[in-house]
Amino acid sequence: MDFNKKALALHRKHKGKIEIKSKVPLETLDDLSSAYTPGVGAVCLAIEKEPNLSWELTNRGNQVAIVCDGTAILGLGDIGPEAGMPVMEGKSIIFKEFAGIDAIPLCIDTQDTEEIIKFCKQIAPSFGGINLEDISAPRCFEILERLEKELDIAVFHDDQDGTAIVVLAALINACRATHRNIHELKIVINGAGAAGIATARLLLAKGVGDVILLDTHGTIYTGRKELNRFKKDMAVKTNKRKVKGDLAKAMIGADVFIGLSKANLVNGEMVKSMSLNPIIFAMANPVPEIMPDLALSAGASVVGTGRSDFPNQINNALVFPGMFLGLLDGWENKVTTKMKLSAADAIAFSVKNPKKDIILPKVTDKKVVKLIAQAVMSAKRRVK
Amino acid sequence: MDFNKKALALHRKHKGKIEIKSKVPLETLDDLSSAYTPGVGAVCLAIEKEPNLSWELTNRGNQVAIVCDGTAILGLGDIGPEAGMPVMEGKSIIFKEFAGIDAIPLCIDTQDTEEIIKFCKQIAPSFGGINLEDISAPRCFEILERLEKELDIAVFHDDQDGTAIVVLAALINACRATHRNIHELKIVINGAGAAGIATARLLLAKGVGDVILLDTHGTIYTGRKELNRFKKDMAVKTNKRKVKGDLAKAMIGADVFIGLSKANLVNGEMVKSMSLNPIIFAMANPVPEIMPDLALSAGASVVGTGRSDFPNQINNALVFPGMFLGLLDGWENKVTTKMKLSAADAIAFSVKNPKKDIILPKVTDKKVVKLIAQAVMSAKRRVK
Repeated sequence: MDFNKKALALHRKHKGKIEIKSKVPLETLDDLSSAYTPGVGAVCLAIEKEPNLSWELTNRGNQVAIVCDGTAILGLGDIGPEAGMPVMEGKSIIFKEFAGIDAIPLCIDTQDTEEIIKFCKQIAPSFGGINLEDISAPRCFEILERLEKELDIAVFHDDQDGTAIVVLAALINACRATHRNIHELKIVINGAGAAGIATARLLLAKGVGDVILLDTHGTIYTGRKELNRFKKDMAVKTNKRKVKGDLAKAMIGADVFIGLSKANLVNGEMVKSMSLNPIIFAMANPVPEIMPDLALSAGASVVGTGRSDFPNQINNALVFPGMFLGLLDGWENKVTTKMKLSAADAIAFSVKNPKKDIILPKVTDKKVVKLIAQAVMSAKRRVK
Repeated sequence: MDFNKKALALHRKHKGKIEIKSKVPLETLDDLSSAYTPGVGAVCLAIEKEPNLSWELTNRGNQVAIVCDGTAILGLGDIGPEAGMPVMEGKSIIFKEFAGIDAIPLCIDTQDTEEIIKFCKQIAPSFGGINLEDISAPRCFEILERLEKELDIAVFHDDQDGTAIVVLAALINACRATHRNIHELKIVINGAGAAGIATARLLLAKGVGDVILLDTHGTIYTGRKELNRFKKDMAVKTNKRKVKGDLAKAMIGADVFIGLSKANLVNGEMVKSMSLNPIIFAMANPVPEIMPDLALSAGASVVGTGRSDFPNQINNALVFPGMFLGLLDGWENKVTTKMKLSAADAIAFSVKNPKKDIILPKVTDKKVVKLIAQAVMSAKRRVK
């Protein structure tokens, strides 16, 4: 792919993508005396007296840590913390460009759940929020769950809720474009990792009643053996009709296929077995579960992928800048379900007249960032 | 103090001092495709194949972590990680302004030696070096010692070696200005914390034979009770004349007083008890062990302090930018004694004709940064 060559050249030329910039002048001894010693001592003492002043007298209030253990980088899997850095630097510059937020990539050398939780707690005094990134399931569920309880700054796992929010937004607009009621849809989600489970949870919170979730062993249902506690919970809350079997079986009669899994798992026959004019979100990257032309020729009405070179790119880069802008500007210390639902609405209704091939705004559309931030702030539930 | 008001206003206005800046354009979908998905995947895979490429394809090779636990901030002591941040942001902008290095402040919420060591190891894949900062003694000695052994990137504790290097540079030039031989000096160091012990060690490495080190209980000598292992080691290596007693006793006949302790511990009588025309470095901040005018009127020939408003400011801001520039540009993974001695020489000999009131270059002198970096690189001892 041409993008690969261009990307390698770009990264080699600039030696990565981020740098630090000073917000204050630093040329004279006088500048030094205010920004550093001796003047800085007074700023330290003010914060010691009232630690919350760190949100106003340091960059903390605009600063997010991107914490990644290198285990689930893009679709590439466990490639190590060093190799995860280019993605994290990419998120960092998107944070800055789209939301003005300073995000520090921290790719860390541990995959232990407790260690990652401890790490996030240790860095908390330096940050206004934490963006967990590309940490593999099921550890990511426990890490997020625990940090949401035990930490006093907002924590957001982009692969879980970022994906869930953008998928919900896409689904809302696919319904608007095809005049369907989201609450009546039969939805099949293939992939029960971070994104699949979070998406199922958010769709249930939205009020979608019929969701079937599948992992590599087939549909998830109550009583299936060897489910981890997160899948067990999903078995109870989804698959009301207790469908047992593989993806082909699950898709029969479904209105929506959401692929958060692997390339080429879906063929035309499977699309034809769905209900009339189905919605297909084939988000495996870089090669989708089914190519858009094939899905369309098999009768799909709306097709979305994770890619920028097809219509309807469903990418969480649409979500995280606005989400954190709302969290930081609203001084929020928890991400609530109401915030996530509001963020999805904000994205969806930023498109005035959704069409089958225009269900989402472009990821370069900065208006959406502000709309999401406002939605997050109005949905706020102050915990402290 | 006026500086305090100015510093508070500056920090409040800008909400801290650092921000992230993108090194690459990010306006079009094409930009996104090279800096982020899908192109970034190729960069990740290149690093997975050859992890050392992270030094070239990410910002790692120019990136330093400033790790602080908030226990020894300036002269303010244990004021907590939040309150330490203004100092760390100050160091960050000095790193950038003087050496072009991107330094990320990480004030962390643990004071446990093992946890801090583990933390530094966890973040290592994201950084080219670690600047330990304002971590109190004696934990800082063990942390540095262990990390130097166990970590594969350079680690530098500024309060130890930054101070030691700048004090040695100041002493070299005080000798040049007063025509003395550094090897023949009798030196008293008051304060056996991070800076005191590291300074004693470096002076011994320089070949100064007569050093007496004192803590709050008086001189340190072999056989004194309740010494931690770092002081015990110093007891063996210093105080050859086995002087027992307080600071006043130790200073009798000494050529040099180095104060790394507290305000107003030294009076004119004590200076008069020293050898003729002694050298006084009274570096307690903001109030020195003895005020310069008092020391001079008591017979001192050269007086230095930590402050910018007196002649001869002895500040480690002169050291750390150049030290890390040399470490990063030279791909060094260890700070050696030879590097420290070379850095001190580089600082000292950047002053062509040292005079009693001009023993050091100004901290705003960017030439010195390059000289130190070159000295560090030529002193290199490749460990890997």
